[in-house]
Amino acid sequence: MPRVHLANTENADMYYLIGTRIPDPFFFLEVEGKRTAILNALEIGAFKEHADPSVDAVPLEPFLTDARMIGGTQNRLCKLALVVFEKYGLMKKEVAVPRAFPLDVADALREAGARLIVQHLFLPERRIKTKTEIGYIRENLESTKVAFSYIEETLRNSEIDGSRIMHRGKELTSEFLKEEVEKVLFDLKLDDVEGMIISSGAQAAMPHHKGKGAILPNTTIICDIFFRNRRNQYFGDMTRTYVKGMASETVMRMHAAVSRAQDAAFAALKPGASAKSVFEASAHAIREAGFDVGEKGYIHSLGHGLGLELHEAPNASPHSTETLVPGNVITVEPGLYYPQDGGVRIEDVVVVTERGYENLTDHPRDLIIP
Amino acid sequence: MPRVHLANTENADMYYLIGTRIPDPFFFLEVEGKRTAILNALEIGAFKEHADPSVDAVPLEPFLTDARMIGGTQNRLCKLALVVFEKYGLMKKEVAVPRAFPLDVADALREAGARLIVQHLFLPERRIKTKTEIGYIRENLESTKVAFSYIEETLRNSEIDGSRIMHRGKELTSEFLKEEVEKVLFDLKLDDVEGMIISSGAQAAMPHHKGKGAILPNTTIICDIFFRNRRNQYFGDMTRTYVKGMASETVMRMHAAVSRAQDAAFAALKPGASAKSVFEASAHAIREAGFDVGEKGYIHSLGHGLGLELHEAPNASPHSTETLVPGNVITVEPGLYYPQDGGVRIEDVVVVTERGYENLTDHPRDLIIP
Repeated sequence: MPRVHLANTENADMYYLIGTRIPDPFFFLEVEGKRTAILNALEIGAFKEHADPSVDAVPLEPFLTDARMIGGTQNRLCKLALVVFEKYGLMKKEVAVPRAFPLDVADALREAGARLIVQHLFLPERRIKTKTEIGYIRENLESTKVAFSYIEETLRNSEIDGSRIMHRGKELTSEFLKEEVEKVLFDLKLDDVEGMIISSGAQAAMPHHKGKGAILPNTTIICDIFFRNRRNQYFGDMTRTYVKGMASETVMRMHAAVSRAQDAAFAALKPGASAKSVFEASAHAIREAGFDVGEKGYIHSLGHGLGLELHEAPNASPHSTETLVPGNVITVEPGLYYPQDGGVRIEDVVVVTERGYENLTDHPRDLIIP
Repeated sequence: MPRVHLANTENADMYYLIGTRIPDPFFFLEVEGKRTAILNALEIGAFKEHADPSVDAVPLEPFLTDARMIGGTQNRLCKLALVVFEKYGLMKKEVAVPRAFPLDVADALREAGARLIVQHLFLPERRIKTKTEIGYIRENLESTKVAFSYIEETLRNSEIDGSRIMHRGKELTSEFLKEEVEKVLFDLKLDDVEGMIISSGAQAAMPHHKGKGAILPNTTIICDIFFRNRRNQYFGDMTRTYVKGMASETVMRMHAAVSRAQDAAFAALKPGASAKSVFEASAHAIREAGFDVGEKGYIHSLGHGLGLELHEAPNASPHSTETLVPGNVITVEPGLYYPQDGGVRIEDVVVVTERGYENLTDHPRDLIIP
């Protein structure tokens, strides 16, 4: 089935297809294996210089003349789509489009007789990373680990003063640590485009709380860092949980349970395994350790695919229907959250290999920083 | 008409409505003035802490139970949308949705009887910036000007050596200047999320060429910097054109023409003016100076709205249909491009005021750097 997309390269599918950033929406057509980008003449020079050479670049302007001849009040992009579909013989065929295809353009095309079939996963090939992509993600995570070493070093070189943590004479805050991490990773070409998490105390018990204010001693500190490389656009994603000072008995048991759940997921990771079964392995370990799965405790999924998007296919949740294959890159991030005790999450990134998996985030999981 | 959206906050409309970043798609409903976000229970805590307090946060999970009862092979999001539309009484009404509304969800809703009206401009209120938004853009541009001063200083402190420009003993390149600009602006909280342009020679004659390799002396150097603030997500956008060394007679005439075209646009800027007429004022000045408008020479539009997106409404092109009103923030960026002579572009950002306009990018436009 031909595939057609219409977006700029902020859309990860479009960036994947083209390999360079184009700021304005353009058409992408794949018809019988032949790939064509139809874009503003202004972009053609840069496109030929930077983009995947297997994609043919065609200027949009000749289509504009025909589009202006179409009556009615539809906008320019709708009329252009009608002309493009006619010229490429797409009106009489079933055509695959992504769920992100502009709704008004889809309406105009369908009204003119086009048969658009929406694909939940428009580019299923994105689930299987190439060596180049794995290299980008590996490099990102090598850099991300530098940030974790920096945080550990900062906590080690801090002192507890009552209910505060003091670092070089100042109270340690989420804001300070985040700014420092941003600086460390900026030099390594990573940008915080999604908003990292460094939270402690009650905030750490809310898995998506970004963290603000004082970092508290003797409570869990969750650090979840998911920066994007500004050269190649690939994400990393990694989480560690620390306690500066003394951890409660419960927190130590939570951390041990989450570590075991991660190990159980690792043990289940291999080609042919269902993503659901890998989640179930981690959930089983959590229950075995005496904690909850579902409404409280381990309240989220095990992980998600990682690449040009922070969350992409395949995901590993109780509802996953996918089977793992070599080249899948996913996060493995069990967690436990109790409002009275705090939160614990440990997250690594793995690539599924022919023989099992490889962990791209080999880094200590130690909880306590004295 | 009720308005409904479904996306994460990488979508600028969703970020605008909520004011904080939410990584996973969620529902936004506006029914009779009441605004509701329906989102993952995991997000509720962080949402209440960070998001616009006028938006009610409702957990998604109770809807999931009903969604699972719906038969058929539709995906989870489609079924959820059906439940949400039923519960909020939206099935019998016309409902405004953006063109970015997921196509598969729209199909499922319409099949069940929903009447979705696609809005080309889903949040027309975004065209009129609040004082806070203007403050963010102003602050961004103040920082962006620092980068231009840095580039000017670097060029001033470089020497021409034959066909090369030498800076501190090394050949000056696009890559070096871009890395330096990234560093300067990183410290000012600005990120290069779209890929800045620093190009010279033949590259500068292609308006969207990002620039690479040596910066050439005695040719135009186009610097177009459009970074996003990583705290508030607002863009700046500013361009200057330089020549290190000697400019040809033609380049000097081109630069003077573009400066006059910008001044002509400024003079036409006022509430009630059509965006098209402001473009026409700039085009008239270009023609008066003996250069071309259209297929060559001044080949692009005058400018575009600026805010949470780099390109947003209103735009100022020969085809614009909008009338300017106070609070519009637009770029004013005429340019001239000839393959044999290079490119010249000068870009400022203005806000339309009650009495005319204010230039948020007051910075010299000087071409020659000796």
